[in-house]
Amino acid sequence: MKRISILGSTGSIGEQTLDVVASAPERFEVVALAAGGSVDKMAAQVRRFRPALVSLGSQEAVEALRTALCGEDLPRIEVGEEGLLAVASEPVDMVVSALVGAVGLAPTLAAIAAGSEIALANKEAMVTAGALVNRELEKHKVTLLPVDSEHSAIFQALAGQRHEDVYKLILTASGGPFRTWSAERIAEASVEQALNHPNWDMGPKITIDSATLMNKGLELIEARWLFDVTPEQLEVVVHPQSIVHSLVEFCDGSVLAQLGMPDMRVPIAVALAYPERIPLDNPRMSLAEIGRLDFEAPDVKRFPAVELALAALASCEAAPAVLNAANEVAVAEFLEGKIPFPRIVALCAEVLEAFHRKPPVEELNDLADVMEADAWARRAAQERV
Amino acid sequence: MKRISILGSTGSIGEQTLDVVASAPERFEVVALAAGGSVDKMAAQVRRFRPALVSLGSQEAVEALRTALCGEDLPRIEVGEEGLLAVASEPVDMVVSALVGAVGLAPTLAAIAAGSEIALANKEAMVTAGALVNRELEKHKVTLLPVDSEHSAIFQALAGQRHEDVYKLILTASGGPFRTWSAERIAEASVEQALNHPNWDMGPKITIDSATLMNKGLELIEARWLFDVTPEQLEVVVHPQSIVHSLVEFCDGSVLAQLGMPDMRVPIAVALAYPERIPLDNPRMSLAEIGRLDFEAPDVKRFPAVELALAALASCEAAPAVLNAANEVAVAEFLEGKIPFPRIVALCAEVLEAFHRKPPVEELNDLADVMEADAWARRAAQERV
Repeated sequence: MKRISILGSTGSIGEQTLDVVASAPERFEVVALAAGGSVDKMAAQVRRFRPALVSLGSQEAVEALRTALCGEDLPRIEVGEEGLLAVASEPVDMVVSALVGAVGLAPTLAAIAAGSEIALANKEAMVTAGALVNRELEKHKVTLLPVDSEHSAIFQALAGQRHEDVYKLILTASGGPFRTWSAERIAEASVEQALNHPNWDMGPKITIDSATLMNKGLELIEARWLFDVTPEQLEVVVHPQSIVHSLVEFCDGSVLAQLGMPDMRVPIAVALAYPERIPLDNPRMSLAEIGRLDFEAPDVKRFPAVELALAALASCEAAPAVLNAANEVAVAEFLEGKIPFPRIVALCAEVLEAFHRKPPVEELNDLADVMEADAWARRAAQERV
Repeated sequence: MKRISILGSTGSIGEQTLDVVASAPERFEVVALAAGGSVDKMAAQVRRFRPALVSLGSQEAVEALRTALCGEDLPRIEVGEEGLLAVASEPVDMVVSALVGAVGLAPTLAAIAAGSEIALANKEAMVTAGALVNRELEKHKVTLLPVDSEHSAIFQALAGQRHEDVYKLILTASGGPFRTWSAERIAEASVEQALNHPNWDMGPKITIDSATLMNKGLELIEARWLFDVTPEQLEVVVHPQSIVHSLVEFCDGSVLAQLGMPDMRVPIAVALAYPERIPLDNPRMSLAEIGRLDFEAPDVKRFPAVELALAALASCEAAPAVLNAANEVAVAEFLEGKIPFPRIVALCAEVLEAFHRKPPVEELNDLADVMEADAWARRAAQERV
């Protein structure tokens, strides 16, 4: 019986994690859940999984949850950032870190400090502070397993292989909804069009990041820290069908790839059950039915985000945190209709340029350094909207 | 330093094995080589790799080799079947079994009995006597590594995975030179056309087997014994580009595949160096350059060999040995222009039918049982040419 907690249990990854848990109830016990303001979903999760501890983002949400569960057995209920850290620190076997955005870093570090194994869906922890997270993992002798489909693919392909034999990590990118659009048409893209991802059903932030390809840029940064490779060992190939989730090339020219129908329950189940696998009753891939898989080089002109991310990765430790924060601001502004689509990545580039002219922080020695880079970048981005 | 011997050193796999050895001379010492009648090639190999023992198929070949190496340091030279068994039994770390045909079984068993690790390119050993070979491997605590591109792909995809999590093995087939031909056109196919394999440069026997798809049928039988799966867990998908060399589907729907440019040096290097990998200076795969990978279900009407092989596998232990021997006779007759192309598989089906009417042997308890099934099938096939 693996005892687990979930940070971000009412989000897309959180809910699918509970789907997987529900499909193998003999394997898992849900100990603690944290979410923001989705009271109804949290009430349903409490009824179904009976966690000992839950946390919501605000006092209002907590009151609403108490009302919703009135007359029933209540778990311990905490609130706000403190509550989130309490859930992260609760002693369990594994914490699924599925918060969206830079807010996921502090609770992920808290979970590591508590000695829990980490299933990481919150890519911002590794993007903004990969070196710091790795130091903490080493210090507390904690294992971290990726939940992203791409990084899970690489993780699976690396099983049983020697690190020194790895030549290259090749991340696949769907190319997003604008893959075949001209630059002129992309310039006019609406929020609705950008949210219309061809293959994956994900939250709005990551869906916009897929449309700009910033998602892939951030994933390259994440891969660098997850798998201890150099930026030169990282590559992206566009693969519109999202069937091949990523590949590893070895020194003998052999390439291992992980494939499957786009279904986040697979990488979630891989992380939850590793080194075992959980039988899932999910749609199976038939290559004969799919018929063909297409691949192309990414177009750096229409989608400059990947190169921007690699440049940030190569410059200094703080630059990826700056890029990530600027991008979070820019995506939020785009979703509110305040800036056009191409302005998202352009704004990130401008903020990075300003950062490099006079960096407020370069090395990330602790969480405060990350926060400083993050806050600086948010201000710099807001000023430029 | 790994000490190796090669059975079939002047054939296609044998020569490529020596290519790999030459690319990593610090890792390997060539102890013994066996071949048939290619005296010039063997003389060159003796000069380059200085084995302590060699064997050739006939006394004439041995005399010719002595003449060719006149005045030079001679290795110990043996002859015929006895010589082949002497090479197989020479104590080394690994024997590369790269003979073509059922003749490879006895020396493979001898190498296992000598306690050497086996790199198996001779698929007939597993096809004709998989259960027997597995028993011998267990008895002598010997590891066997596949050299076929498909089985090497599966072997690599299985690294670090649990056997009980395997759901299906999916072998890819190029479809051969006649994939897009009508049944009428296939009926008229010439030897030259059948030898014109689209992707792989291999010996004539296996190239014809690729054209009939019998190769894939025999590989399914081999996979059943190599990876301890049931016939129901075996599947074939046609993939004309031969880039994806095979796949493993796990119980959670995740699929691991091995890819690369068609190059037998990769599976050879994987077997030679396992669990390490040897850096090779070979052409690398670029999915963006390749552009697309195609897949289709095999057409059982035009290519009945795969179903014939699965039926043989499901019937009794001796049936695959019968199928293999009948096929060896049929291919030889086709290569000599004595029977038309579709007659190859038809002849195999007829022999199997006759076998099932009155089987001379069903279980394979020892090498003699395999020999009996083999000899019976050769006679039955010859009678029907």
